Amino acid sequence: MAAPSEGDAASLLPDLPGGPLQAYRARASFCWKELALFLEGEDMLRLKKSIFSALEDDPLFARSRGHELSLEKHRELTFLRCKRVLGRALLRVEDMVRNPLSVLTLITCLGTYDWSLAQKFLLHLLVFGFAIYKSGSERHLEYLPKILSMEIFGCFAVTEVSHGSNAKAIRTTAHYDPATEEFILHSPDFEAAKFWVGNMGKTATHAVVFAQLYTPGGRCHGLHSFLVQIRNPKTLLPMPGVMVGDIGKKLGLNGIDNGFAMFHKVRIPRRALLNQTGDVTPEGTYVTPFKDAKQRFGASLNNLSMGRAIIVAMSVVNLKLAVSIALRFSATRRQFGPTDEEEVPVLEYQTQRWRLLPYLAAVYALDHFSKWLFLNLAEFQQGLMGTDRSTRQAELGREIHALVSGSKPLASWTAQRGIQECREACGGHGYLAVNRLGDLRNENDPNCTYEGDNNVLLQQTSGYLLGLLELRLQGGARLESPLGTVDFLEAYPDILDQRFSCPSVAGCLESSVPLAAYEWLVCYLLRESVQKVNQEKRSGSSDFEARNNSQLKDDAVALVDVIAPPDFILDSPIGRADGELYKNLWTAVLQESKVLERASWWAEFPASKTHVESLKSRL
Amino acid sequence: MAAPSEGDAASLLPDLPGGPLQAYRARASFCWKELALFLEGEDMLRLKKSIFSALEDDPLFARSRGHELSLEKHRELTFLRCKRVLGRALLRVEDMVRNPLSVLTLITCLGTYDWSLAQKFLLHLLVFGFAIYKSGSERHLEYLPKILSMEIFGCFAVTEVSHGSNAKAIRTTAHYDPATEEFILHSPDFEAAKFWVGNMGKTATHAVVFAQLYTPGGRCHGLHSFLVQIRNPKTLLPMPGVMVGDIGKKLGLNGIDNGFAMFHKVRIPRRALLNQTGDVTPEGTYVTPFKDAKQRFGASLNNLSMGRAIIVAMSVVNLKLAVSIALRFSATRRQFGPTDEEEVPVLEYQTQRWRLLPYLAAVYALDHFSKWLFLNLAEFQQGLMGTDRSTRQAELGREIHALVSGSKPLASWTAQRGIQECREACGGHGYLAVNRLGDLRNENDPNCTYEGDNNVLLQQTSGYLLGLLELRLQGGARLESPLGTVDFLEAYPDILDQRFSCPSVAGCLESSVPLAAYEWLVCYLLRESVQKVNQEKRSGSSDFEARNNSQLKDDAVALVDVIAPPDFILDSPIGRADGELYKNLWTAVLQESKVLERASWWAEFPASKTHVESLKSRL
Repeated sequence: MAAPSEGDAASLLPDLPGGPLQAYRARASFCWKELALFLEGEDMLRLKKSIFSALEDDPLFARSRGHELSLEKHRELTFLRCKRVLGRALLRVEDMVRNPLSVLTLITCLGTYDWSLAQKFLLHLLVFGFAIYKSGSERHLEYLPKILSMEIFGCFAVTEVSHGSNAKAIRTTAHYDPATEEFILHSPDFEAAKFWVGNMGKTATHAVVFAQLYTPGGRCHGLHSFLVQIRNPKTLLPMPGVMVGDIGKKLGLNGIDNGFAMFHKVRIPRRALLNQTGDVTPEGTYVTPFKDAKQRFGASLNNLSMGRAIIVAMSVVNLKLAVSIALRFSATRRQFGPTDEEEVPVLEYQTQRWRLLPYLAAVYALDHFSKWLFLNLAEFQQGLMGTDRSTRQAELGREIHALVSGSKPLASWTAQRGIQECREACGGHGYLAVNRLGDLRNENDPNCTYEGDNNVLLQQTSGYLLGLLELRLQGGARLESPLGTVDFLEAYPDILDQRFSCPSVAGCLESSVPLAAYEWLVCYLLRESVQKVNQEKRSGSSDFEARNNSQLKDDAVALVDVIAPPDFILDSPIGRADGELYKNLWTAVLQESKVLERASWWAEFPASKTHVESLKSRL
Repeated sequence: MAAPSEGDAASLLPDLPGGPLQAYRARASFCWKELALFLEGEDMLRLKKSIFSALEDDPLFARSRGHELSLEKHRELTFLRCKRVLGRALLRVEDMVRNPLSVLTLITCLGTYDWSLAQKFLLHLLVFGFAIYKSGSERHLEYLPKILSMEIFGCFAVTEVSHGSNAKAIRTTAHYDPATEEFILHSPDFEAAKFWVGNMGKTATHAVVFAQLYTPGGRCHGLHSFLVQIRNPKTLLPMPGVMVGDIGKKLGLNGIDNGFAMFHKVRIPRRALLNQTGDVTPEGTYVTPFKDAKQRFGASLNNLSMGRAIIVAMSVVNLKLAVSIALRFSATRRQFGPTDEEEVPVLEYQTQRWRLLPYLAAVYALDHFSKWLFLNLAEFQQGLMGTDRSTRQAELGREIHALVSGSKPLASWTAQRGIQECREACGGHGYLAVNRLGDLRNENDPNCTYEGDNNVLLQQTSGYLLGLLELRLQGGARLESPLGTVDFLEAYPDILDQRFSCPSVAGCLESSVPLAAYEWLVCYLLRESVQKVNQEKRSGSSDFEARNNSQLKDDAVALVDVIAPPDFILDSPIGRADGELYKNLWTAVLQESKVLERASWWAEFPASKTHVESLKSRL
């Protein structure tokens, strides 16, 4: 690696201030500036510096992590900051095109400052905006400049109260009416309300809404997305027939207004359908370039990989911040020592190092991996938008999907555990809100469940591997993939024949030894899984049963009745599941959003006046 | 187990309401009422019911978990609730004496409702009050009725900004002045400020303060405790020379006002010394019944075991609540299924069971263990207060200390991981604040680090085991203990000779198989540890070095410089450790507590006016 030239280093990486860390820094075996330059490159260091300087110099970004703000004010402030970030144009389009990593750098820099801001920006510009650009057609291009200027503000509404992981089962409907050339958007009941939608709670004027598309005669064509205006951009009052509000306080990310929406026979123009994967003619005939409905469903949701890859990078930032705080604290906090008079920094204790250093290593490993993943995904997306319909492109898509599905759980869980370890390693000081470890934990937490629950996602990766091995076993196709991540599996019979043979403890520290052990383990688990699935299928199980074949006893719920305190104490709507589950949840939400006071038209809602009154009486 | 009589069951354990859980309950292989009666006993069920009913019927306890309250209001409400609980006399003294478990039941019931309330009550009555009763003498008895009536309100001040785990190194001083028969209490600097003290922030009028006791001539007699008035009970204004305030928002437990205090040459009467372990005559001579200073230090801190045993029970409550919420949710949340039309409860998925059921089992195991531990500890404490000075009593003390030191980490970490798993198992709904899993995680979190950091405590348990084994190796003493928890180690040579020999997977499910494996592991680790420690000592290491002998490279801090964002972003005082660590922490605290505006006398503080001005300028 080349040493940084004097001038660059001085401006991009100024010397660190003196202080108690000085002694540790002086003992380092490497030059931190050289390493930073090697890992990031001068361009990215320069971009980071310009973003951080822009935030630091603007009073709107003066530190307030929202502890002293009401929920309402916290959300307002985040919205204003988001608008300012868009206005400042921190990243030029030509830089984005030249180096896709600059997009990731912008997002992670904003998130390093505050994830509510980064996500609000991301949801509006890259999720909502990109969905319109990618799933719409020419007729939707007029919206793009309005999105960039925040003349309209957007959200992306897939999840409903009762359906998240199983997106296919979403129950919002869009019936086409050829008489007026409109779709009638409708939420059949509470459980079909859009829920969790980021930016929807207070600020979004428009939503990309996923609904089951019906053509005249009652034929359902599956999930499609529609661009729907939900609020008046001047007054932020809901549009007629739209009940929209905030779902209330979350464990973190409270600068973002997650919201709910129900549609009461809301009429939207035919052109609101984002028609890239399927369209309806003015007369009401459904047309699609896809022959297979499953393929169309996949294409309509394939934006999700990008979100997941970004979560890998987000998790790295969170762990990076936590490890920085905990290690610096450990180097200055002194406790106990060889004599009563002399105390040593807690970093000198073997347990403290054993707890923290693996996470420091994980930051470096995952940081590099997340950039590699993002660049490959960006290349793949460019191929998708271009004309690349090659077999390699299709295989690359499958490989990247499997990689993203495995690495989002790995990164988010590593960060979650690491932040908790960092918080505990700082003792009481780690429990003080001002020291940010709580915010980091709370803001990393949803990374484990949104954009695909970690446990559900992992099954996508194992499905990919099982599929490859089955092809290999059936027809002798080579086990290989465009990025080469599965190529080692081609040697799996030999790998399984290997036996552990490291002569000494010192020898085990060679990276080849754990790598070989890991390869063996992957092959072993893969073989066992293939055998189990095949055995299930031979004994007549369906695919669904095969996945869920070993039933445990059903005493769990009854056992809970023994330990559970009375409902008065249990407090959580989801814990009081006696018939009132979603209604209670809903009541809590209504209470939070004060929607009943505002939405007088709601008394006309199918749930009937009686029900409204009974809800009100419980508020 | 006897079936409950009809009348009892009906009044104590009414039938559960119908609803979607009905189907699961009907499939249980046991009667939940019988099991509850067997596990708790009728007396405790009755007590629980009376406590919960008292809370449920009183509007002061109407549900508000403080999300909508300011920090100030949340703390005020918790104080009022604490006063009400004391006023209601939920537990009669004769019941406490008859069954010590009733004390634990009261605390855990209050905590099941809200840990801020339970801890505020516990800190005042059982920590502050018991310290005066136990560490003081007849001259302090006058305070007890005032404590019971909350005429005075108390806190227990050991920890300082820079010293927690190493309590011996505390730096607050108490110099005796025979001229006026007073102690002069003094905090030499910021790092010696009392910190983290529960109830001290806003509400305590009195504190038990630990300080180094000096007699004339400058001789230090080590740590002693003093009863110090810190606020006027009518106005709550600080007493002269006392700078006291709130340390600000924490990750949880925000109903409790954790505080700091600095003493500026505060004069307190000689009789304020809690003189059970040592006293000073009016002329200034130090007298103590203990010959050994180390023994005296141990006796002055031996209240800590009770706090730790209660933390085991607190952790069980937290896990119990989380598991109740997550399992009931899992039984009603449906997602995916064998066909598109039919979705199954997520509890039917093997992964969901695999994630949650071990924690359900852990609740039952730890619940039973925590009661057993508490009863033994109560018996031991009764012996301490009586005349029992037998060898068995001394051995019991060591065994219980080792058990508490090992089980507090086990219970608090199991709960912490379990709650996180429950939160993730509820998906997005688990991330909504109203569903309480976030509160449970945040309120359980400090159980891992306060009242003895888990990692530090575990070394107490291993120290106990190593000591026993060394005795056995040196003199052939039998390995045994009053409660019998280490007796199995007597057979350790035979155990180490055992080899795993379970013929089938089914055989491994016999509980004797994992138990044998576990016993082998304990013996193996114990032998390895003894050998390592002995080897260190033979090669000349001191005890301190032997514990911390394998140094890693010192690149950690320099590596952090590469990944860390600028200080503007890093935000945490403990993460910006460049020379300003504690000053920054302090500034943050001053900002939170607004103490500078109030305490004009502070300008006279040794830190000098200039420093005050520079602090003010940074606020």
